[in-house]
Amino acid sequence: MVTTICLSSRTSFVSTAAIDIAEDKLGRDLGDVLGLPHRLDLIVQKDAGKSFTKAKPDIVVHATSSSLKQVYSLIIECIRSGTNVVSTCEERVYPYQKNKAIARRLGRLAEKHGVSVLGTGINPGFLMDTLPITVTGTCLDVKHVKITRMTDSSKRRIPYQEKIGTGLSQQEFKKKIGKEITGHVGLNSSIAMIADSLGWMLDDMIELPPEPVIAKRIMKTAYTTVEEGLVAGLKSRAYGIVDDKKAIELEFVSHAGVDEEYDMVEIDGVPKIRLKIEGGVHGDVGTSAMTVNSILKVMNAPPGLHTMNRLLIPSDTPLELNRYVR
Amino acid sequence: MVTTICLSSRTSFVSTAAIDIAEDKLGRDLGDVLGLPHRLDLIVQKDAGKSFTKAKPDIVVHATSSSLKQVYSLIIECIRSGTNVVSTCEERVYPYQKNKAIARRLGRLAEKHGVSVLGTGINPGFLMDTLPITVTGTCLDVKHVKITRMTDSSKRRIPYQEKIGTGLSQQEFKKKIGKEITGHVGLNSSIAMIADSLGWMLDDMIELPPEPVIAKRIMKTAYTTVEEGLVAGLKSRAYGIVDDKKAIELEFVSHAGVDEEYDMVEIDGVPKIRLKIEGGVHGDVGTSAMTVNSILKVMNAPPGLHTMNRLLIPSDTPLELNRYVR
Repeated sequence: MVTTICLSSRTSFVSTAAIDIAEDKLGRDLGDVLGLPHRLDLIVQKDAGKSFTKAKPDIVVHATSSSLKQVYSLIIECIRSGTNVVSTCEERVYPYQKNKAIARRLGRLAEKHGVSVLGTGINPGFLMDTLPITVTGTCLDVKHVKITRMTDSSKRRIPYQEKIGTGLSQQEFKKKIGKEITGHVGLNSSIAMIADSLGWMLDDMIELPPEPVIAKRIMKTAYTTVEEGLVAGLKSRAYGIVDDKKAIELEFVSHAGVDEEYDMVEIDGVPKIRLKIEGGVHGDVGTSAMTVNSILKVMNAPPGLHTMNRLLIPSDTPLELNRYVR
Repeated sequence: MVTTICLSSRTSFVSTAAIDIAEDKLGRDLGDVLGLPHRLDLIVQKDAGKSFTKAKPDIVVHATSSSLKQVYSLIIECIRSGTNVVSTCEERVYPYQKNKAIARRLGRLAEKHGVSVLGTGINPGFLMDTLPITVTGTCLDVKHVKITRMTDSSKRRIPYQEKIGTGLSQQEFKKKIGKEITGHVGLNSSIAMIADSLGWMLDDMIELPPEPVIAKRIMKTAYTTVEEGLVAGLKSRAYGIVDDKKAIELEFVSHAGVDEEYDMVEIDGVPKIRLKIEGGVHGDVGTSAMTVNSILKVMNAPPGLHTMNRLLIPSDTPLELNRYVR
């Protein structure tokens, strides 16, 4: 829902429509839904097609499901109405590996209708793909890439803590895998994007099911108190296999009581690189920023389906890309 | 000289000409100049125009002077011969602030001849511009950017240590400022590029003359022994002023006996970011890599004068950009 996207203070876009299917949002003013002190004179509707015809937006900022198959028809509707799209759907970020046929159809349709579409976010979209890829620019050779994201879940919203199994027993956690507990979605997008940029043919891609992280001592979170022996959070791991070796390793860890939060990129190559973002980047703020900051780049890109690694470098983009230079 | 560029093991480019004016290289086989165990059957010549006519290269990898005015005529010759150019000339990396007229002329000529030209390197070109700009993509707002490069000069080649004043007295150092001792060249390029990407109008740009770093104890380098009280290296600082405040701060430090080498990006914004490359990136290897890895991106870019912040994200680029995707 576009409500989750904060408009960057550095730009001034005008919202012309608000679309959602959630019953508790339908029919309400968007300003009210966002908790703003004023109305925006935009009523939340569920019919995307009608909204586009009436509002004629330049771009749709899409943030609903993580599954490409689920959002596919909505993206098609955007494209057919001649509207660019920037989306946080994790499987949209790099769809050519897992959803090749869908990606090609979207790409051809976007080209036909003269619009550009992009998937982005803090991850996939930046931390475990765009950033490490960018750093390999300083390398004459790359043998292995490992990215680790270590976050303290006790600081996050309650739905997030539920989603990672906080406070469950190990058996309860196991039952929910693949249902309420998905682990980090989209690691395959990041692996495929890295392989694309480095010219590596992947023999295989392995995404392990989420693994529980068990509390070694009692700990409190905003959500619950986690007793020793219960689930404090989870770990998601995925690998890209090249020449039978794990050439790309992604590890996402989120639990209560993490010693230190950080995002780490480790490249084994010439030279070796060890890059650390101390404290890590906040997921929600980062995703909003990556999305809003991509808007102008998507609108200026040639028609088609774009991926972060084949677009201009990310930046906290000003209102007009060309204002200060030429 | 193209000899300073190591060809990435991940690509296979064919060198078709070698150009230099250095007397000790002229007339020699390039393989011999590079210290390779075999000849390359390329004789180093000084006439660029004749070489281009004969060899008809797709791109020239240019690495001679740091001054845009000095390399200008050579770049013009490349463009007029219909050859793309990737250059390590620091003032070419972002020339629109300090050398606007030259930049515009180069750009128009490049467009007229259907070629692309780019300035890049480890810095300017990546560490103090492209990398921090990329990280601002995760920010909803940026107030201040500070980049620090801390390097141990005792590990570097002897000409480098001489160039930063190692072993001189403070008076000797002061006399050489602006002559043999220039400090870090191109910090203005980085500042201007950051301002461009963030949409900041610079009120002013301040580049301080290089400051000596004085040895607090005796220390040995490959070059010399530095007594206490003598120059161990230098510090270069530059600022971008926006609304009368130092909005962009660059600090390059290189001396013997540095406690810890690193490259650091600190962004004060929403969110705050603190990114550290532990050990820092080696200057020579990094510059070679950035240059070689930019070759295909320059060749695939539309005609004109390009800058790193308006190009595809850097990466350890494969031979063909499109091989693995479509």
